[in-house]
Amino acid sequence: MIEAASITDNAGAEATAIVLIVASSIIGLVFAGLQYYKIKSIDMTLNQTEESLVNYDDQPSGGETHQEKLKNISEAIQLGARSFLKAEYSICAVFLAVFGIILLVLLGTADNCGPVPVSTGVPQSGDCWADAGFTLLAFLIGGVTSMVCGLVGMLIAVYTNVRCTVEATRGWTGAFNAAFRGGAVMGFCLSSLGLLVLYIVIEVYRIYFVSGHGEETTEVDGEQQPVFIYLIFFEVVAGYGLGGSSIALFGRVGGGIYTKAADVGADLVGKVEKNIPEDDPRNPATIADNVGDNVGDIAGMGADLFGSFAESTSAALVLSATSTQLQESYATMLFPLVISAMGILACILTSFVATNIRPVRDGAQVETVLKTQLVLSTIILTPLLALVSWFFLPADFTFGADPNANSIQGTAEVSHWWGAFICLACGLWAGLFTGLITEYYTSYSYSPVKEVAASSETGAATVIIYGLALGYKSAIIPVFLFALTIFASFYLCGLYGVSLAALGMLSSFSIGLTIDGYGPITDNAGGLAEMAELGENVRHITDTLDAAGNTTAAIGKGFAIGSAALVSLALFGAYVSRIGALEEGINILSPITFAFLLIGAMVPYWFSAMTMKSVGIAAQAMVMEVREQFNTIEGIMEGTAKPDYARCVEISTRASLREMIAPSALVILAPILTGYLFGVFALAGYLAGSLVSAVQLAISASNTGGAWDNSKKFIEQGNFNGKGSENHKAAVVGDTVGDPLKDTSGPALNIVMKLQAIISLVFAASFSRFALPDGQAWAGYPQN
Amino acid sequence: MIEAASITDNAGAEATAIVLIVASSIIGLVFAGLQYYKIKSIDMTLNQTEESLVNYDDQPSGGETHQEKLKNISEAIQLGARSFLKAEYSICAVFLAVFGIILLVLLGTADNCGPVPVSTGVPQSGDCWADAGFTLLAFLIGGVTSMVCGLVGMLIAVYTNVRCTVEATRGWTGAFNAAFRGGAVMGFCLSSLGLLVLYIVIEVYRIYFVSGHGEETTEVDGEQQPVFIYLIFFEVVAGYGLGGSSIALFGRVGGGIYTKAADVGADLVGKVEKNIPEDDPRNPATIADNVGDNVGDIAGMGADLFGSFAESTSAALVLSATSTQLQESYATMLFPLVISAMGILACILTSFVATNIRPVRDGAQVETVLKTQLVLSTIILTPLLALVSWFFLPADFTFGADPNANSIQGTAEVSHWWGAFICLACGLWAGLFTGLITEYYTSYSYSPVKEVAASSETGAATVIIYGLALGYKSAIIPVFLFALTIFASFYLCGLYGVSLAALGMLSSFSIGLTIDGYGPITDNAGGLAEMAELGENVRHITDTLDAAGNTTAAIGKGFAIGSAALVSLALFGAYVSRIGALEEGINILSPITFAFLLIGAMVPYWFSAMTMKSVGIAAQAMVMEVREQFNTIEGIMEGTAKPDYARCVEISTRASLREMIAPSALVILAPILTGYLFGVFALAGYLAGSLVSAVQLAISASNTGGAWDNSKKFIEQGNFNGKGSENHKAAVVGDTVGDPLKDTSGPALNIVMKLQAIISLVFAASFSRFALPDGQAWAGYPQN
Repeated sequence: MIEAASITDNAGAEATAIVLIVASSIIGLVFAGLQYYKIKSIDMTLNQTEESLVNYDDQPSGGETHQEKLKNISEAIQLGARSFLKAEYSICAVFLAVFGIILLVLLGTADNCGPVPVSTGVPQSGDCWADAGFTLLAFLIGGVTSMVCGLVGMLIAVYTNVRCTVEATRGWTGAFNAAFRGGAVMGFCLSSLGLLVLYIVIEVYRIYFVSGHGEETTEVDGEQQPVFIYLIFFEVVAGYGLGGSSIALFGRVGGGIYTKAADVGADLVGKVEKNIPEDDPRNPATIADNVGDNVGDIAGMGADLFGSFAESTSAALVLSATSTQLQESYATMLFPLVISAMGILACILTSFVATNIRPVRDGAQVETVLKTQLVLSTIILTPLLALVSWFFLPADFTFGADPNANSIQGTAEVSHWWGAFICLACGLWAGLFTGLITEYYTSYSYSPVKEVAASSETGAATVIIYGLALGYKSAIIPVFLFALTIFASFYLCGLYGVSLAALGMLSSFSIGLTIDGYGPITDNAGGLAEMAELGENVRHITDTLDAAGNTTAAIGKGFAIGSAALVSLALFGAYVSRIGALEEGINILSPITFAFLLIGAMVPYWFSAMTMKSVGIAAQAMVMEVREQFNTIEGIMEGTAKPDYARCVEISTRASLREMIAPSALVILAPILTGYLFGVFALAGYLAGSLVSAVQLAISASNTGGAWDNSKKFIEQGNFNGKGSENHKAAVVGDTVGDPLKDTSGPALNIVMKLQAIISLVFAASFSRFALPDGQAWAGYPQN
Repeated sequence: MIEAASITDNAGAEATAIVLIVASSIIGLVFAGLQYYKIKSIDMTLNQTEESLVNYDDQPSGGETHQEKLKNISEAIQLGARSFLKAEYSICAVFLAVFGIILLVLLGTADNCGPVPVSTGVPQSGDCWADAGFTLLAFLIGGVTSMVCGLVGMLIAVYTNVRCTVEATRGWTGAFNAAFRGGAVMGFCLSSLGLLVLYIVIEVYRIYFVSGHGEETTEVDGEQQPVFIYLIFFEVVAGYGLGGSSIALFGRVGGGIYTKAADVGADLVGKVEKNIPEDDPRNPATIADNVGDNVGDIAGMGADLFGSFAESTSAALVLSATSTQLQESYATMLFPLVISAMGILACILTSFVATNIRPVRDGAQVETVLKTQLVLSTIILTPLLALVSWFFLPADFTFGADPNANSIQGTAEVSHWWGAFICLACGLWAGLFTGLITEYYTSYSYSPVKEVAASSETGAATVIIYGLALGYKSAIIPVFLFALTIFASFYLCGLYGVSLAALGMLSSFSIGLTIDGYGPITDNAGGLAEMAELGENVRHITDTLDAAGNTTAAIGKGFAIGSAALVSLALFGAYVSRIGALEEGINILSPITFAFLLIGAMVPYWFSAMTMKSVGIAAQAMVMEVREQFNTIEGIMEGTAKPDYARCVEISTRASLREMIAPSALVILAPILTGYLFGVFALAGYLAGSLVSAVQLAISASNTGGAWDNSKKFIEQGNFNGKGSENHKAAVVGDTVGDPLKDTSGPALNIVMKLQAIISLVFAASFSRFALPDGQAWAGYPQN
């Protein structure tokens, strides 16, 4: 076995870590800037040469030229997206303020905070108000960073989509590169900014916590003991993850309701009642639909993954603070951040392959190029992660009170640097495989989706039955993969290992996010081409780009769910460690824990019921508006009068913001109330139940929806009697049902898992001792 | 506080218990016989007087008289039901034989069986082959009893349905009473037979176990200690529950697939393609559809509840054997059986109200009369259960090694007789409330179903979205009720309390089953009236009876799920007690346990995917056959030629039996393999995950399906443009999707929960020590 690089020169290792972190975030930001510059350089005049793919024979309706139309519509989308984010962020700002005050008061008045005596591993009363204040600050910074990331993503997406359309009038390479670069700006901005801000927060807080308390001891049972200062330090830093994740919740739920209300509303009237194609400019809801792609998929997905990153890093930091050996060198403590730094570097390398080394020359290559990105980044990262594990981690380390052996039940006696690498690799590869399995179940290249399409022979009912069954079934292999990853990493390095697995899975997320951003950009580009009436040839290019994006988006969703599951477990572990119950364990067979295990498993259903119905309600408001416009605005169907797009945008905005409050309140308040009213063991059961239940629901909802979407597309390609047939109508029903499942409730469940766990962690200090008759609400907690 | 009746006269108390058990089962059987006699006395000649409701002006097609037609069709249904059960029971017999051999070998060669030393609470090597043999015998007896119960239920149902139709030509009272009495024959036969057979098994086994080992001691750490002989004794008796439950699985899955394949197949061609009404005799699948009601709802539901009864009694017995005080008197040990005995007596009293004291005089009363039955039996049982708790239980009792205090984490120090009564009452009333909430969400008298119906305005897709959301939402209150019941009973009397809660919920199950049987009988009666062309008036009576039955069937499903959840938890507890980990607890945060918690939560999805697809496959086979018959048999649509009913019956039979194998194998093998390959702690996680996940899925699947069914009926009553409108078509899609959810996968999940837990309990002795690297597969287990 290879020996670990014994870091004798702590200062040198520390410098290396810091340089890696800072340099890679700056390189990432510069790289994003470079991509932006390339997008900016795109010539925006429509190709008027003979090679132009635009059909100039058909003059667009309404008296504008193609160029003017393109400009106007693109501006309308930008305006809609901006006004939604502005409205959403106003609500988020209010939330940050109100929840921040609550957090400050609850944590400030907690009776269990401050430095941690080594022997108990649990905190004792210290300066609660200081801790609370620092947590609040981290929370606000995390929230604002998440908002900035969402805003940057949205701005670049609406900036790029029209440029992608213009490039599509010239050919494949330019169009693909524009969309890919747009995604990259978001992907790298987000990962680099997230890492850099978090690093700065840590450095600043370190001045107070470590320099202030560094050599401190505390009295336990009359003896002076050294303190686990890092546990409190990193717990305070976890506020960053909480902030990021809260904003992500609003982004996902609000954006998800927005996009699907507009989509379902546009389809129900446009496609079904009026029989006009998707993205037809005569449909009043079409702009809102395109805005939805940007606010739901771009800003929502970005905030989601940013949250995962912030939370898994927080979890790893907190958990590393429960190990004596991992605390010996600051460089070792920074290891979780180094992983993400390596991820940024590897992803930059990978992305050159797509844009420079093997650029896309025609439609057939698109999907391969995108998939290659994911596989390649995984391959490149594997040895890099081995290297940093070897360099930064001690040869052996343990967790818990006993410095010579792990004291967590069921884990290996001692953890090793190579064990940590295995955790990272398990996460990294499990993510990739989950993505590929997701693709298998949701792409029409494979039999499951074809079977759903075939079931349209006997009508919509069988399409729904087969689709639901497919979704349920698609959970099998991913869950086995997650279970294996959890077992291996938990066994090798305790819950720290689980957080490493999450970080490993997320290490390639700059590329993942690039591809996730690419999808909505090409989707919008297609919408713009349709609305500006550029003709079939241009639309063909954007459609092909979009179709490949759909497949890879499914892969991205697999990643998102997998990382969420791992992050949640790691945070759950950090929470249990924080309440001092890690060594004794959480007994599933205690009355309060089991009762809440059951309740926790129910909450994802409750949440899904709320979000799905919200989409229904918002969509019906949209349907009414669209019908009204078709009935009252004369000449709308002939293209002589313009529909009132802004009104639809406004309706979607208002409905989605109104509807996002209740489900968000549910998942934010439930863990807090459980902790306060029923104690920390009730909350432990709640979190475990919620986690295992949400994973299944999230996977099956996402994949069912994806499969219906693609089975419809498969029929539209001329299979099973093709477009307009009874089969197609049946498949459209499936697609519409799938919309809220795959784009609202499914992905939002990711955030539910993570958010509930990090809320529990951050608030753990303040849950007062709830005196169950057994007086056992805080296991092993020192009485004070 | 009232003092417990201190049972100083053990022999007297014992005699009382035995008399109560034996007498009530015999009274129950006599009562069932009496009901059968009353049904038999029904005059089978169709009413030809002026008051007759039959429309004799329209002569039935095909040249037969109404009377002949009725007779022929009724015989066809009887024949179909018998031939299905014959085929199914042949498979069950093979299963009993094969699985019995496996069970014998695995348990016989186990290295952990025999008498239990009190100090450890866990078994040590004894005569494994004897234990295995007795377990096998109990298993076979349980299986055969379950089959007999299913057969009796089916026979009486197909005997009664035609009599109900004939009575319906005369008026309300007779028709209602016939159906209600038919249900009662099944309900009381089943509860009485189940109780009596179980009691006989216990008495016979007692001769070997207690008389043979009564005063035995065993050596622990060099000292002679008294043994927990009852733990092994009752564990062996638990084989009875295993047998009953295995047959229930086949009954539910096979019957569920059968009934829905026929139903969906008949509807897809008949209603949708050919536009002929339900139960039209021209539809070749119509007989199969009616047969399905009998084999799915009657035999399946009967076996399901019989299984719950057998298992919860087994669990209570095993758990009572972990208490020193509960073992002091044999009368106290028989307490779980006494509860069921009281249930039979109370239900007999209650049923007189329906048939004699306040008989049904018109349609409006039907639903009230049925609901009154449930409420009344609950009210009557409450004081009775208090009385027997006071009489048979010791004033104070404890569980675990410490005879002075409960040693299960988080429970009350000492348990009391009144605590046990609270457990029973919690279960009893939680069952009733769950039923009423289920009704709220699935009856069109209330807003949730009306909302689903209203969503048909925007098409099938919104019907599906709203229906799914409704199902998810309907889990909220029941889960809170279950959680409360679990917490209260677990806290007061440990896991024994949970098993008491299950028994309390099931104590009224004779009436529950009566009402469950009533539904399919009236449904069939309606089918017979339609097929024999007796006219609108008769059909109106049967339809009204049926509609009320639908509502109460929903209530019954709530009961079934609730009791299954409680039984499973009690069995899970018995399993954990059996592996000797009850006092130390099951740590959720150990790698193997958490990994399997996740996997366990996934299995209900896997199982649902399989069963739903099975219905789809079987239904498609049926569709092909029906289409074929319409195309090849000339004169079928004109009514001049008879369709080939038998072929459809055969197809349903074959398809359902073929399709039931895989899902059944999954849930039977998964816990066994988990236990053998990954150890008992993996299995503990698996069971907990599976339980909490299955509860949510079962509730939401059942209620979503029920709500779609009734929203369709609501539209058919003339709301939202009524029958034949676009709204109606959309609702029919929902109804068809709901069929496999509410009648196949949903109810089968009940059995999945229970069966997996009891398999784990029975096989616990044979799971070999799986040496995880931590060597901790058997917590607290003595090394030998």
